[in-house]
Amino acid sequence: MLAEIEERLDAAYAVVRLFEPGGAEAAKAAEGRIRAVVTGGGTGLAREWFDRLPELGLVAVNGVGTDKVDLDLARRRAIHVSTTPGVLTDDVADLAMALVLGILRRLGEGDRLVRSLHWSQGGTLPLGSSLRGRRLGILGLGQIGRALARRAEAFGMTIAYWNRSPVEAPAAYRRCDTPTALASECDVLAVCLAGTAATENMVSHEVLAALGKDGVLVNVARGSVVDEDALIAALRDGTIAGAGLDVFVGEPKIRNEFMTLENVLLMPHQGSATIETRRAMGELVLANLAAFFDGATPPTSVIQLEGNAR
Amino acid sequence: MLAEIEERLDAAYAVVRLFEPGGAEAAKAAEGRIRAVVTGGGTGLAREWFDRLPELGLVAVNGVGTDKVDLDLARRRAIHVSTTPGVLTDDVADLAMALVLGILRRLGEGDRLVRSLHWSQGGTLPLGSSLRGRRLGILGLGQIGRALARRAEAFGMTIAYWNRSPVEAPAAYRRCDTPTALASECDVLAVCLAGTAATENMVSHEVLAALGKDGVLVNVARGSVVDEDALIAALRDGTIAGAGLDVFVGEPKIRNEFMTLENVLLMPHQGSATIETRRAMGELVLANLAAFFDGATPPTSVIQLEGNAR
Repeated sequence: MLAEIEERLDAAYAVVRLFEPGGAEAAKAAEGRIRAVVTGGGTGLAREWFDRLPELGLVAVNGVGTDKVDLDLARRRAIHVSTTPGVLTDDVADLAMALVLGILRRLGEGDRLVRSLHWSQGGTLPLGSSLRGRRLGILGLGQIGRALARRAEAFGMTIAYWNRSPVEAPAAYRRCDTPTALASECDVLAVCLAGTAATENMVSHEVLAALGKDGVLVNVARGSVVDEDALIAALRDGTIAGAGLDVFVGEPKIRNEFMTLENVLLMPHQGSATIETRRAMGELVLANLAAFFDGATPPTSVIQLEGNAR
Repeated sequence: MLAEIEERLDAAYAVVRLFEPGGAEAAKAAEGRIRAVVTGGGTGLAREWFDRLPELGLVAVNGVGTDKVDLDLARRRAIHVSTTPGVLTDDVADLAMALVLGILRRLGEGDRLVRSLHWSQGGTLPLGSSLRGRRLGILGLGQIGRALARRAEAFGMTIAYWNRSPVEAPAAYRRCDTPTALASECDVLAVCLAGTAATENMVSHEVLAALGKDGVLVNVARGSVVDEDALIAALRDGTIAGAGLDVFVGEPKIRNEFMTLENVLLMPHQGSATIETRRAMGELVLANLAAFFDGATPPTSVIQLEGNAR
């Protein structure tokens, strides 16, 4: 989190930082008194910690993903889990659009060609692809998916989507019945859904095969949604054309095979990584903590507690 | 040009290719008979060739820039100069938007961080900037500038512009009186005007100083519009924040100082470099040649000949 948010945490609370030197010992010493945990979406909170923290009442996630928090366990224990919804929608959609542009117009390869001096020496870049008229398939038409669609329309792309549940969408957006059907009907497939057990490996070998050799994958959701074995094989064998990836399984220790691929843009999970959004997310974390310690319901908790369980 | 366009040239005309092995000798032998020249916007046609080609009637530029063709000389000699207007507008605007996103969201640095394995080893990227609410200043509100503005609005950016002559624009676009005034009132300055004697070094030390330390420059026009000494100094000294550049003085042999800069995205002049647009541009080149050799006016000539001078 931003230094300014950390400072406000320190001003309001007794804070133990697990990932600082000596943090593990400090956390152990404070186990019986820790009432709230602040964590990132990619880190969440391991089940072990639920057992070790008897007074835990709030897990405040600085992000929108709850895939690394056991929500059922939280519910049973009457522990709130808050996220930072809404404030990061624009930034994540911006980054998704940047990845679409980056792959279709070969930004990474172009920058490498110039910096390696190959352009100066007569080297050229293969031609890219126009966006106008290309079909963007959005896997998961939530807030981020819709925001991406609005941006893509300004470039003349047409929109199709798959969403688990029926969802209101502009008439011009074409709904597909399955992820595979969506992949077969689009040029660029953008993954915008939550990482859950139900979405694990949803972008499978079959979906990538349907996307096809001119198809491009963009993922700003979670690495777990994509079968990375299948993705690396598809990129290496040219059965899809390219990928723009902001998220990976096991990040930041991601598979080294990714680094050897040319028409792939690799971002270190930057979806919400702007000063403006990190500030807004930090404010939401602080607001959830303040409400909880006041005995009120954290405003953006995803856990509905029955009655006033706590 | 695309191979398919070159093949159609060969099918219709006797073609001498200057840049092929033996091309110089072949061109010399054909000097008295060459009636049309096909060239790129960045190459144009040196004055020397106007002297050497007494039968020249058409210079068909595969692009929209005529900065490397002496239009006054062409007019005096009653030689048509055709370009490929319209068809590359979307692609160039797309690339400009890609560069805006690429710098504000640190795409080049991010990809390098991941590929160098620094991310895996715990390295992090500085935070980027949100686009929403940021002010985009467009230097030259022609077709490409307008197309860029429409895209930027979908990201929540506000638009200001400078244009030499009054120009119709949406009421929400703010007109500035000078390039320096525009730079001082925007966060991202995008150069979208033609490279001419009048625009040479228009983005001067003064304009870059007005852009300021949080400001970003994007150039998809011509390298000559920017004072590259001033730009390199500003990037090196941090008096502007970053730059996304598709065009350079003397390209492809560009200044090596560019390669040493971090928050700079360097593209090898890819504005119109898509299959779709290069095909459309090639069709326009062929149409201009066909009209000329039929004795008609090339449809997209920029030279108004008096009467039927030829």
